[in-house]
Amino acid sequence: MKLADIARELGGTVEGDGEIEIESLEPLDQAGPRDLSFLSNPRYAAQLSGTRAAAVILGPSVKGPGCAVVRVDDAYLGFAKALALFAKPVLPAAGIDAAASVAPDAEVGASPRIAPGVVIGRGARIGARATLHPGVVIYPEVEIGDDFTAHANVVVRERVRIGDRVLIGPGSVIGGDGFGFVPLAEGGVWKMPQVGTVEIGDDVEIGANTTIDRATIGRTVIERNAKLDNLVMVAHGCRIEEEALLAGQTGLAGSTVVGARAQLGGQVGSAGHLRIGRGVRVAAQSGIANDVPDGAVIGGYPSMEIGLWRRVVAATRRLPEILRRLKRLEQERAPSSRDDV
Amino acid sequence: MKLADIARELGGTVEGDGEIEIESLEPLDQAGPRDLSFLSNPRYAAQLSGTRAAAVILGPSVKGPGCAVVRVDDAYLGFAKALALFAKPVLPAAGIDAAASVAPDAEVGASPRIAPGVVIGRGARIGARATLHPGVVIYPEVEIGDDFTAHANVVVRERVRIGDRVLIGPGSVIGGDGFGFVPLAEGGVWKMPQVGTVEIGDDVEIGANTTIDRATIGRTVIERNAKLDNLVMVAHGCRIEEEALLAGQTGLAGSTVVGARAQLGGQVGSAGHLRIGRGVRVAAQSGIANDVPDGAVIGGYPSMEIGLWRRVVAATRRLPEILRRLKRLEQERAPSSRDDV
Amino acid sequence: MKLADIARELGGTVEGDGEIEIESLEPLDQAGPRDLSFLSNPRYAAQLSGTRAAAVILGPSVKGPGCAVVRVDDAYLGFAKALALFAKPVLPAAGIDAAASVAPDAEVGASPRIAPGVVIGRGARIGARATLHPGVVIYPEVEIGDDFTAHANVVVRERVRIGDRVLIGPGSVIGGDGFGFVPLAEGGVWKMPQVGTVEIGDDVEIGANTTIDRATIGRTVIERNAKLDNLVMVAHGCRIEEEALLAGQTGLAGSTVVGARAQLGGQVGSAGHLRIGRGVRVAAQSGIANDVPDGAVIGGYPSMEIGLWRRVVAATRRLPEILRRLKRLEQERAPSSRDDV
Repeated sequence: MKLADIARELGGTVEGDGEIEIESLEPLDQAGPRDLSFLSNPRYAAQLSGTRAAAVILGPSVKGPGCAVVRVDDAYLGFAKALALFAKPVLPAAGIDAAASVAPDAEVGASPRIAPGVVIGRGARIGARATLHPGVVIYPEVEIGDDFTAHANVVVRERVRIGDRVLIGPGSVIGGDGFGFVPLAEGGVWKMPQVGTVEIGDDVEIGANTTIDRATIGRTVIERNAKLDNLVMVAHGCRIEEEALLAGQTGLAGSTVVGARAQLGGQVGSAGHLRIGRGVRVAAQSGIANDVPDGAVIGGYPSMEIGLWRRVVAATRRLPEILRRLKRLEQERAPSSRDDV
Repeated sequence: MKLADIARELGGTVEGDGEIEIESLEPLDQAGPRDLSFLSNPRYAAQLSGTRAAAVILGPSVKGPGCAVVRVDDAYLGFAKALALFAKPVLPAAGIDAAASVAPDAEVGASPRIAPGVVIGRGARIGARATLHPGVVIYPEVEIGDDFTAHANVVVRERVRIGDRVLIGPGSVIGGDGFGFVPLAEGGVWKMPQVGTVEIGDDVEIGANTTIDRATIGRTVIERNAKLDNLVMVAHGCRIEEEALLAGQTGLAGSTVVGARAQLGGQVGSAGHLRIGRGVRVAAQSGIANDVPDGAVIGGYPSMEIGLWRRVVAATRRLPEILRRLKRLEQERAPSSRDDV
Repeated sequence: MKLADIARELGGTVEGDGEIEIESLEPLDQAGPRDLSFLSNPRYAAQLSGTRAAAVILGPSVKGPGCAVVRVDDAYLGFAKALALFAKPVLPAAGIDAAASVAPDAEVGASPRIAPGVVIGRGARIGARATLHPGVVIYPEVEIGDDFTAHANVVVRERVRIGDRVLIGPGSVIGGDGFGFVPLAEGGVWKMPQVGTVEIGDDVEIGANTTIDRATIGRTVIERNAKLDNLVMVAHGCRIEEEALLAGQTGLAGSTVVGARAQLGGQVGSAGHLRIGRGVRVAAQSGIANDVPDGAVIGGYPSMEIGLWRRVVAATRRLPEILRRLKRLEQERAPSSRDDV
């Protein structure tokens, strides 16, 4: 693809030779003379001068390294758009494979791509252009919109509802039983039936081996455009509002709400029955034990305002020193007031 | 279903019109005029007065909101029993689907429901009324009791033994290799063969995408009525005693014992070769590095007695203040004794 | 198997009767009169004297309990080698099962064992002696070396490259999309296409339900002989160098490097774009926020040098006491200098 054509798709301009033929996109340190690269993270700025790339995508204020430059407003977004030009998606063959099992009364929309080993249960309804990779299991009475993609071995339990353009990574489980047991006075436990469901909005993306439990009653909700990474755990009755981002291995206990556009780092944990406000940002590995107001930035276990947390972290490393200084002050007191330490 | 009939099943009494026809169970804030709701968590008491429900399940001391009331000893248990009346479980068709692969010498008990894509290996023995959803893989020589349910894509590795009435959620793996490698003096590592197995007792329930590793030798044991949530990791040689509860994303290193009726919150981690005592309760995200006595309540990383931990948490937030106060005390000393901070 | 034959395979010597016939290997406390056991962890030394084992494997300096002894340089390695003698691996039947789906142009090497429900996509190339358990999905254009073992329901996404003698546990996902979204100025997000791949070196072992994401561009790399446990998360663009060990539920954010022979405990988390040095050891549940030099031993959240961390942990428990002592010192000052606490 010609560099000038790429630049036009990106809404950018070429500085240098627009006739260069680009074969691939590569990182700065791996790119060769037929590759396009980019710089958006200043951490890698030192790699720019040494790159062997034919051309680089750069934002407004960054000096080029000598090769051709595609100048754009946002180098990271420009790179994303360029990648989309070079992506070669892999799809199952058109149609419904003979080695798939589709219930007679299930409805599958136009132009499906349904791979071997897929199972679609009774009364399920799936929209147009569904792409179901091998081993996907859709339980009975599920409803799914158009342009659905489920990678291999995804499981969608009964009666779950899924919107349009949803993408689910391999091995994820939507609609598993919530974890609820009632301790009995005479010993033992009574399983709380989980008769609710999960509702997933349009344009949601879910990673690999993530689990989203169905509600005890009512619905667990993942709103439009929310994005969940791998190995995330969403317990029964949670609501993830629109455009929220949950990074890998994060877990939410039951009935917690994550506000719109909130961003949770990896391995974050939240107690149940909380509200994490809109636009909240949570540092990786934090533990959330209380409601979090809109727009807060928090970190720590238990979590606190991020500035306080940073000061606490710095002071924590000085705890042994604090003990020494405290002891010294005590020893300097009049002998009569000393106590054992 | 008539309200009076529901109340009888729950062992409760109706206050108001027992002839009301109930269609569904819903949360207080979503229930409508043909729904039954409940209040057990005082956190939601404010929703009671505003509910549009036809009736509510309440414990002994809670004042009704004006609609009909089903009065029971334990509102949460009453609600669980009511849910069971309204649950509509979804099962694979009776029999063994033609698209399942069952080894000729495998034994499957009476009245199975075995879905498409299920694979049962040589010499496996499965009891009566087994429900195996699509994609379940039972390796050779597995032994399973009666009334077994495995949701889609569950994997049970070779020679694992499972009791009666066990329920395993989608994607969970029972009997994977333990993680053991012996570093060699000359470099490299030697894989420790994992020739033991896993033994799961009666009435155990396991969530989605959880992994329980087989023992190096001997057995990893999950005792009767223990309940494990999603994405839990039980390493080789652990023993989870009866009625223990492990919440989501909790992980145990090898050969650790979790005592009967212990409750581990979400994302808890434990070192290996420990004993966590009977009835111990562990706060979410705690890290357990030592044996824990029976009945202890602990939290923190590393974990400590919960009361101490709460005081530590409160004091931790004051660390920057502690440093300031310490410095001030030092500055107030006679100039001759000062040192740099 | 005769004890003397076992000792010879282990490169050890028998003390006592080498003619004893051994039937099984068992832990010290479970072994009976036809079993061989071992002691390597001093924690279990007390079990040695009471064991009913026919014989035990011991290192150079350990006194036997009276029964026969197999004396070796390294009791743990000796035990590992003995286990390998007694392992009875379970394999799918030789050949390609009729209920597997192999694309016409896929290449499968000599002597495969491919189980029912396996799907191999277009243009995939797999070496000799591949063992694919039921439900394994190999996407198109994947390249895999010789002696590959994939347990049930493993997913290998398109174009991933895997070396020789690689073992992947049930349910793991190799090559899922990295988690990358570009926030748009006008609201919403743009999915960063993930057009890179994953490359896995020789002799790598991966546990159950682990996820390794493909790079945005270029490669996520797991080098030779690295070992990953269950439920581990490796994000896009990471490099795990040779012989590194990652324990269960550990997670790495994008583009982080784990140096050769580093050992990460369970539930460790690392931020992205870091280098964790060669031979680094990380305590369980640690959070890594900065580069770590070669050979460091670290712990804590955020992580620090392990000796400092241990002192910090000890001092943290004393924080309530520190506050009391500080207050007392302040109260002992001249009244004129007091402030409220």
